[in-house]
Amino acid sequence: MIHQKTISLGPFPRGIHLITEHILSQCGSLPYTGLLHLFIRHTSAGITINENADPSVRHDMHHFFNELVPEHWSGYTHTMEGPDDMPAHIKASLLGSSVSIPIAHHRLNMGVWQGIYLGEFRNKAGKRTVIATITGE
Amino acid sequence: MIHQKTISLGPFPRGIHLITEHILSQCGSLPYTGLLHLFIRHTSAGITINENADPSVRHDMHHFFNELVPEHWSGYTHTMEGPDDMPAHIKASLLGSSVSIPIAHHRLNMGVWQGIYLGEFRNKAGKRTVIATITGE
Amino acid sequence: MIHQKTISLGPFPRGIHLITEHILSQCGSLPYTGLLHLFIRHTSAGITINENADPSVRHDMHHFFNELVPEHWSGYTHTMEGPDDMPAHIKASLLGSSVSIPIAHHRLNMGVWQGIYLGEFRNKAGKRTVIATITGE
Repeated sequence: MIHQKTISLGPFPRGIHLITEHILSQCGSLPYTGLLHLFIRHTSAGITINENADPSVRHDMHHFFNELVPEHWSGYTHTMEGPDDMPAHIKASLLGSSVSIPIAHHRLNMGVWQGIYLGEFRNKAGKRTVIATITGE
Repeated sequence: MIHQKTISLGPFPRGIHLITEHILSQCGSLPYTGLLHLFIRHTSAGITINENADPSVRHDMHHFFNELVPEHWSGYTHTMEGPDDMPAHIKASLLGSSVSIPIAHHRLNMGVWQGIYLGEFRNKAGKRTVIATITGE
Repeated sequence: MIHQKTISLGPFPRGIHLITEHILSQCGSLPYTGLLHLFIRHTSAGITINENADPSVRHDMHHFFNELVPEHWSGYTHTMEGPDDMPAHIKASLLGSSVSIPIAHHRLNMGVWQGIYLGEFRNKAGKRTVIATITGE
């Protein structure tokens, strides 16, 4: 069994956001055993798994990514869409465009401290689309 | 239904390359709904999803990765294969060795601005092999 | 066919560790064609694919990650669990929480120089749990 859902998120402000419940509420029922694959259809936002409890982790990750991939590096040539654009592309590939999460007993088989993060790297982004592909039986 | 193809790429010069058409032309027909998993069988090249239109994004990402993971950092001990080798291993793990892309209506269900990138991190690489695993129905 | 195994690893000291054999010995038999998905149920450790032969690659990657994500950056606010904690979360998302590896002829279809790495980013971690999800036929 394999099926796909199109999930709409946000718009969110620039930053790292916990989206576990946004995703699950739009996925429908999950198989007994399987995998949930999430793919973001954009190149200036990313998706990852990290700590789900303390908002300071998202805060610090956001600020660290801004430090790691600065806006005004002299090497950028792709600057037409604003100073946040090229860093957003790089951050998207560092964080990744997709995650796969195991499913067991009709639920995500994540650790108790894990959640799904959206990295929104543009200053003024619109809604984001995530494709959920559910495989299992 | 699950099947696998072995895809040969390049050789490409050191840099970031758009390989969407190279991949699709060697994948054969795609299922109605599914996932395309691409895995590069090398540890000094990576694969990611990013912007497919403007070559300056690939140019800047290449140069930024060179800045982020410099060749002559004093901490390297694995230097026998040349100054580009250890940075290539690190870049490969930062970018990732594989991507999974949703398939819908027998086509990749990516965003209109998304393409598949090969990160070639060695100065003088040979051909690269990618394993495409197609799951779907 | 899809099934799941829960794999226990370590405890390992902080560093990058080759775990290919630990994983395979706990996975059981693999299908003729398929995918092995590995997901680590923690947010301060990561999993990636890289060079399997020379331990100096793991050594250098470990030290480079410590350089890239320093412990005493002034921007951190999530510091309650020690100076290694917030860097561990960031490193986990840079390296990634999961990998998918193609299976062919009942074996991992990796390159001859590829192995599975665990990135243990905490100073004093306990055992780590990895969920292996095997899809194939």
